[in-house]
Amino acid sequence: MRLVSFSNQMDTMVRPGLVEQGLVVDILQANKLLELSVPDSVQAIIAEFATVQGSLRHMAEAASQGKLSEASYALHEVTLAAPIPRPQKNIMCLAVNYTEHAKETAALREHGGKAPTQPVMFTKAPTTVNGPFGEIIIDPTVSEEIDWEVELGVIIGQKGKNIREDEAMNYVFGYTVLNDVTARDLQSRHKQFFKGKSLDGSCPMGPWIVTADEVRDPHNLALQLRVNGAVKQDSNTKQMIFSIPEMIATLSLGMTLEPGDIIATGTPSGVGFSRVPPEFLRPGDIMESEIEGLGTLRNPVVSSQQ
Amino acid sequence: MRLVSFSNQMDTMVRPGLVEQGLVVDILQANKLLELSVPDSVQAIIAEFATVQGSLRHMAEAASQGKLSEASYALHEVTLAAPIPRPQKNIMCLAVNYTEHAKETAALREHGGKAPTQPVMFTKAPTTVNGPFGEIIIDPTVSEEIDWEVELGVIIGQKGKNIREDEAMNYVFGYTVLNDVTARDLQSRHKQFFKGKSLDGSCPMGPWIVTADEVRDPHNLALQLRVNGAVKQDSNTKQMIFSIPEMIATLSLGMTLEPGDIIATGTPSGVGFSRVPPEFLRPGDIMESEIEGLGTLRNPVVSSQQ
Repeated sequence: MRLVSFSNQMDTMVRPGLVEQGLVVDILQANKLLELSVPDSVQAIIAEFATVQGSLRHMAEAASQGKLSEASYALHEVTLAAPIPRPQKNIMCLAVNYTEHAKETAALREHGGKAPTQPVMFTKAPTTVNGPFGEIIIDPTVSEEIDWEVELGVIIGQKGKNIREDEAMNYVFGYTVLNDVTARDLQSRHKQFFKGKSLDGSCPMGPWIVTADEVRDPHNLALQLRVNGAVKQDSNTKQMIFSIPEMIATLSLGMTLEPGDIIATGTPSGVGFSRVPPEFLRPGDIMESEIEGLGTLRNPVVSSQQ
Repeated sequence: MRLVSFSNQMDTMVRPGLVEQGLVVDILQANKLLELSVPDSVQAIIAEFATVQGSLRHMAEAASQGKLSEASYALHEVTLAAPIPRPQKNIMCLAVNYTEHAKETAALREHGGKAPTQPVMFTKAPTTVNGPFGEIIIDPTVSEEIDWEVELGVIIGQKGKNIREDEAMNYVFGYTVLNDVTARDLQSRHKQFFKGKSLDGSCPMGPWIVTADEVRDPHNLALQLRVNGAVKQDSNTKQMIFSIPEMIATLSLGMTLEPGDIIATGTPSGVGFSRVPPEFLRPGDIMESEIEGLGTLRNPVVSSQQ
């Protein structure tokens, strides 16, 4: 199942949708046609998934039988927001979770280049969330070192605390593509990463959440980052240092995870600031973030001063 | 004006209140008596303060004239939650914002003991929020190094981005007392501070939000932390390295601040882990956090294994 948050010209309110055979099924309209009562946001659908998944599967089936054409739109007719447009807390992110990335950032981050022995975690404010095709706006008075970081996003489905590794995957609702866009100058200047990671719009996400049942092995997904078509990052989630169960166990130790929580699992090597010479995003660039089986984000970079 | 979130035996739903002359005025009951429509949460009151402050002042006046006795409770009759029981994003915190604290943590944090030249910021999850008199629950399987950090909390009232220092104080709604309770072992183990700062219940807050108009100089408030009556931290907000306008300007650079956002302004010297020998909170302890003119938190420490 693929869940989106979308709007269109007929109705600019962002609402939940189901992607079936290249069409977006408007869940609220489908509710009326099928006399169902699926909640009106992806956040609420995740929180109540145990009770509403039957209705959603019924909707998907009706759509595949062509019974929901009145409630369906072609993808090009809608504007996709991030699947969770406003998370209920900061996005939780893993730093240096790919060995090659640990090496490439060693000199600049003064950590010796060794893979960390424990997960290193920081957060991005909810105001960073951006659509899968939203603009990355660069304000040179804020930062001139805006860098890319394609990452697998994990969406938590169940509330839990002190979750054991061998049970952790039961807490995963699904997966999405995200980009942990980073202001390198601010990240360095303020030591702790929060500031440099939290500029408005610096977390494009989507295009949809793919539910966990449709992802055979999240630890074996190719991921790639392109700028203007040139491949900058090209790796596989099997290169992650800490696995998804390890992240969930570590994060949930003494801290309750909740439905809709988003974990950014770290980025592979190939980021801009560790290149020689360093490369950063510039107005006019097109940044594409792709993960096998999950989809592609395509974000144009624009100047705030246009 | 002093705003609380409270419940009582008659009604266990947490709702907003106004503290007047030692009584808690139930805002929702007062709405009915006075035919007003103040929102049903402190978060919403802050967001809509421009339009509802007249109603609130009318309520406060009616209370002081004894006209709201039906809607009022003695403080000892109610249970206070944190004034904002569930913030809409992580709490934003300043690290090392007092010179003496920078010195005492130098060896342990490998930063040389010099005051930072730029604010260092990290976050605490919304699930850390605890009541002003709530229990601090220690689980030895999670952390055995739970430490105290009394701090002035700043509550943002207006949405803003790229806020200038000379206008920053206009964005402050009010102040509260908070304690940035920290698991030192986790803080060290995971490098970035988020994990060690985000255990459930590790941010007691309150007892109320005092609106900015009632705090003459937030940069000159005595603050004190006591464990079982023994003074551990004893300083004044005038010792802060970065002022509130500097924090707001830095945080809002490229990042939108929103009504209800909470900034923890850093803790003075006297924390447990830098004492010789180190001291940590133990079950049975009573931790008191007091700020001049704002009030006192009183949190009993208990074991999760009782």
